[in-house]
Amino acid sequence: MAYNLLKGKKGIIFGALNDQSLAWKIAKRAVEEGAEITLSNTPMALRLGTLKQLSEECNAPIYVADATSFTEIENVFKQSMDHFGGKIDFFLHSIGMSMNVRKSLPYDNLNYDFLMKTLDISGVSFHRMLQVARKLDAINDWGSVVALSYIAAQRTFHRYNDMSEAKAILESIARSFGYMYGRDKKIRINTISQSPTATTAGSGVKGFDSLLDFTDRMSPLGNASADECADYCITLFSDLTRKVTMQNLFHDGGFSSMGMSLRAMQVIDKEI
Amino acid sequence: MAYNLLKGKKGIIFGALNDQSLAWKIAKRAVEEGAEITLSNTPMALRLGTLKQLSEECNAPIYVADATSFTEIENVFKQSMDHFGGKIDFFLHSIGMSMNVRKSLPYDNLNYDFLMKTLDISGVSFHRMLQVARKLDAINDWGSVVALSYIAAQRTFHRYNDMSEAKAILESIARSFGYMYGRDKKIRINTISQSPTATTAGSGVKGFDSLLDFTDRMSPLGNASADECADYCITLFSDLTRKVTMQNLFHDGGFSSMGMSLRAMQVIDKEI
Amino acid sequence: MAYNLLKGKKGIIFGALNDQSLAWKIAKRAVEEGAEITLSNTPMALRLGTLKQLSEECNAPIYVADATSFTEIENVFKQSMDHFGGKIDFFLHSIGMSMNVRKSLPYDNLNYDFLMKTLDISGVSFHRMLQVARKLDAINDWGSVVALSYIAAQRTFHRYNDMSEAKAILESIARSFGYMYGRDKKIRINTISQSPTATTAGSGVKGFDSLLDFTDRMSPLGNASADECADYCITLFSDLTRKVTMQNLFHDGGFSSMGMSLRAMQVIDKEI
Amino acid sequence: MAYNLLKGKKGIIFGALNDQSLAWKIAKRAVEEGAEITLSNTPMALRLGTLKQLSEECNAPIYVADATSFTEIENVFKQSMDHFGGKIDFFLHSIGMSMNVRKSLPYDNLNYDFLMKTLDISGVSFHRMLQVARKLDAINDWGSVVALSYIAAQRTFHRYNDMSEAKAILESIARSFGYMYGRDKKIRINTISQSPTATTAGSGVKGFDSLLDFTDRMSPLGNASADECADYCITLFSDLTRKVTMQNLFHDGGFSSMGMSLRAMQVIDKEI
Repeated sequence: MAYNLLKGKKGIIFGALNDQSLAWKIAKRAVEEGAEITLSNTPMALRLGTLKQLSEECNAPIYVADATSFTEIENVFKQSMDHFGGKIDFFLHSIGMSMNVRKSLPYDNLNYDFLMKTLDISGVSFHRMLQVARKLDAINDWGSVVALSYIAAQRTFHRYNDMSEAKAILESIARSFGYMYGRDKKIRINTISQSPTATTAGSGVKGFDSLLDFTDRMSPLGNASADECADYCITLFSDLTRKVTMQNLFHDGGFSSMGMSLRAMQVIDKEI
Repeated sequence: MAYNLLKGKKGIIFGALNDQSLAWKIAKRAVEEGAEITLSNTPMALRLGTLKQLSEECNAPIYVADATSFTEIENVFKQSMDHFGGKIDFFLHSIGMSMNVRKSLPYDNLNYDFLMKTLDISGVSFHRMLQVARKLDAINDWGSVVALSYIAAQRTFHRYNDMSEAKAILESIARSFGYMYGRDKKIRINTISQSPTATTAGSGVKGFDSLLDFTDRMSPLGNASADECADYCITLFSDLTRKVTMQNLFHDGGFSSMGMSLRAMQVIDKEI
Repeated sequence: MAYNLLKGKKGIIFGALNDQSLAWKIAKRAVEEGAEITLSNTPMALRLGTLKQLSEECNAPIYVADATSFTEIENVFKQSMDHFGGKIDFFLHSIGMSMNVRKSLPYDNLNYDFLMKTLDISGVSFHRMLQVARKLDAINDWGSVVALSYIAAQRTFHRYNDMSEAKAILESIARSFGYMYGRDKKIRINTISQSPTATTAGSGVKGFDSLLDFTDRMSPLGNASADECADYCITLFSDLTRKVTMQNLFHDGGFSSMGMSLRAMQVIDKEI
Repeated sequence: MAYNLLKGKKGIIFGALNDQSLAWKIAKRAVEEGAEITLSNTPMALRLGTLKQLSEECNAPIYVADATSFTEIENVFKQSMDHFGGKIDFFLHSIGMSMNVRKSLPYDNLNYDFLMKTLDISGVSFHRMLQVARKLDAINDWGSVVALSYIAAQRTFHRYNDMSEAKAILESIARSFGYMYGRDKKIRINTISQSPTATTAGSGVKGFDSLLDFTDRMSPLGNASADECADYCITLFSDLTRKVTMQNLFHDGGFSSMGMSLRAMQVIDKEI
């Protein structure tokens, strides 16, 4: 169901890979709600994924860019402003990658070049987008920026590895830049801390199914799906949430506020 | 602007007094967004305020009840269900009162009868509404419940007094009942932690203007208004936030994430 | 091992029942570290427990009092000051009781008289002690006050019931009164959020063994024992922590910062 | 006053510059409490500061190392173990540096090479020390590790700049590594979030005096001094806090739990 919540708004979606991606669902919902969008991802993501399909479905040009390059990010914003004939109203950051996770290097045996890369791609890239946007004055007053995060920024999850530090930076950037951009241009910046979701990125991690099962049992409403995440994200891009900023917003069926549920206890009881 | 976000939904608004009230604004916005509502407040509030005007504007019956009486709250839910011819989809708790504050008793010289009354009216009343609703099975699956809170539940504000403890209970009830009601009936329960707002309740507190000025200077987007609070509340009642539960959501222009702003520093610099 | 950390200090320990109690262990450690103490509990606790043994071992008088009576609490402070011939330096609040838990009333079917009693005994009693102390000017400057809490104040635990709200109030009182008492008399007030512990109070709760097992598996250092809690509490009563105030301090082997551990995952993996 | 709290313990202190440094005070207190220590800092810090004086006063060798070099950190641990003839029991991380701050680059105009350097020196260096220690099995079971942090990891402070992100990483590393090191070797890892302190590092920041004044007015017990920080740190290195891990511990006179104090309000009232 659509409400025209984003009618007339323009935005950039960073990080859609295929129809499992959170960014993909958010792009689709934004367009359903009346927004015009552009898409951006890396050359490799374009090869591995199916972004062109999304581009067609959303009537949205793709601007290829490496999130670690200031110039390339700058081009995405410039091209988007050219495309729209003016400023944008929102953008989404949905980017995360850890070579330490991919190579299964445990957290007490990290490769530091990989770690710095994790921080750069998954965290600092968000600052880069914001600094580009600020420099180009690319966002209309009362615009909205969202990045996708995970509760591993607050609590330790076995195997989440150095992505915890990346998410900690990401949420910190939302606060720090949210102050400056809010004060100067009324732009708000938040992160959504989403349930673990069976995207291509998530599914690759060993033990991911067990994690999904556990968090689902712990969450009174069950895990939040990618579609539900898209719905929530739309409210944050809309004009109805103008004074929400510098927040990390849990969208997780209640998981973050649970200590022990009956359903989780039942599994444990059977075993011990 | 209206989006039909609450089309077909039915709800109860507890705690509107006059057109300064947060609950008043939320009632109006809910109706604008397509909801049908009923209203409830105490006999004294009806005498002191202008609830009948709201009743007419919203085409909403008023059911008088004291929030400390289980039977009276039960009647509000029963009458509302009768009125709607079925279950409700949402309700708002916007109730707070402290005799210790009214009588200017400092926090280290509280009257304990007053304190228990503060906790009962401002905190436990929320549990009472939820227990009534659960017992009557009064809320449709995937319904949404919101209570209005304040950051004094986390941090100490000079003169906020025993309302801090009331808000701490209120937010705890949202979590505890959010677990049970979520698990059993998919109902979500959240609190909005709103900027200080110049309502009749707020304005009565000594030093309130100074507080408003300080929080406005500290908040990059400025204090959130009652109208903006209504907008935000609508998103929480809508179907777009179905997996957000057991959360305390700051709607405060960024205040909660600020340590020191330039604008606040400038005032302090002048003085010292 | 003893360090004379509390040499010359005087304090009151509220809530020791028998040698399983956290308060019992803390009383013993305080005396080992050079403190002189007095003890207080209710008449019923004296009958059910073995407080006289502790009294003898610690050379500490017992002053019977109901924590819901201002006058009786006042007498405990007055008698303690008489006994010591002067002000005290610290006190411990270790009191919690819920009739709703005892009667196994589920959280969505609470008895409200019981609930108000839970809040009064387990939460408001802490305010009462502080207000008495402030009124009598019973605590030396730079004194230290500790209350024992549980993480259910932040997250929902199946079956912890209305004790969640009591702990939420308790922690709020530590902040609110910590502000006033700190500002005026340099007294600091904190809560320790302790691992679930197999005390007489804890063990009575159904499913308690499963909870202990789960939290032990989740905590990298395992659950914190009562003896370890006593050690930690001593540091908070000592002069080495003078600027720590208004804090809720987790003493739980790391549980509060965990999302998922390998050891917990292994149990779940076996089952699903 | 000394209690022999660290009798027989051995540790490494990273980051003392001169007698204003938090690390300096902690080194001195550790030795007073019976510990043997070694010291480490960069070649430049040795030139700019007076570490040799501390070395003499504490009878502690200095091992020069750049915190961004795994090999050099490894050498500090190896040399320390050689010096002590065995494993250590604790270490302190007190390292922070931002070229963006030094060059007064505002947060929305950061130099990204500087930013990566800030993260590496001030955050990732802590992981490096822990990974070295783990690899060398350099810490006795039940050892304790502390890093010094600041509340800018949670809330935005005008001018604290990219050090916010560095502190966010630092605290995240304490949690993530705290899990692994706790699980495998019973080592605990915490951060102390200290009041702003007039160290050489702190004093260099523009507007620092105003910040100190503000936080002092907001904190019921006033700002925590470097000496008090040393006292607190000793409790964390001692055997009395064995089950405290993965925590960020505020040592700030209550600042972190304050929303508005009378003393801060008075300054603001005068001005507005």
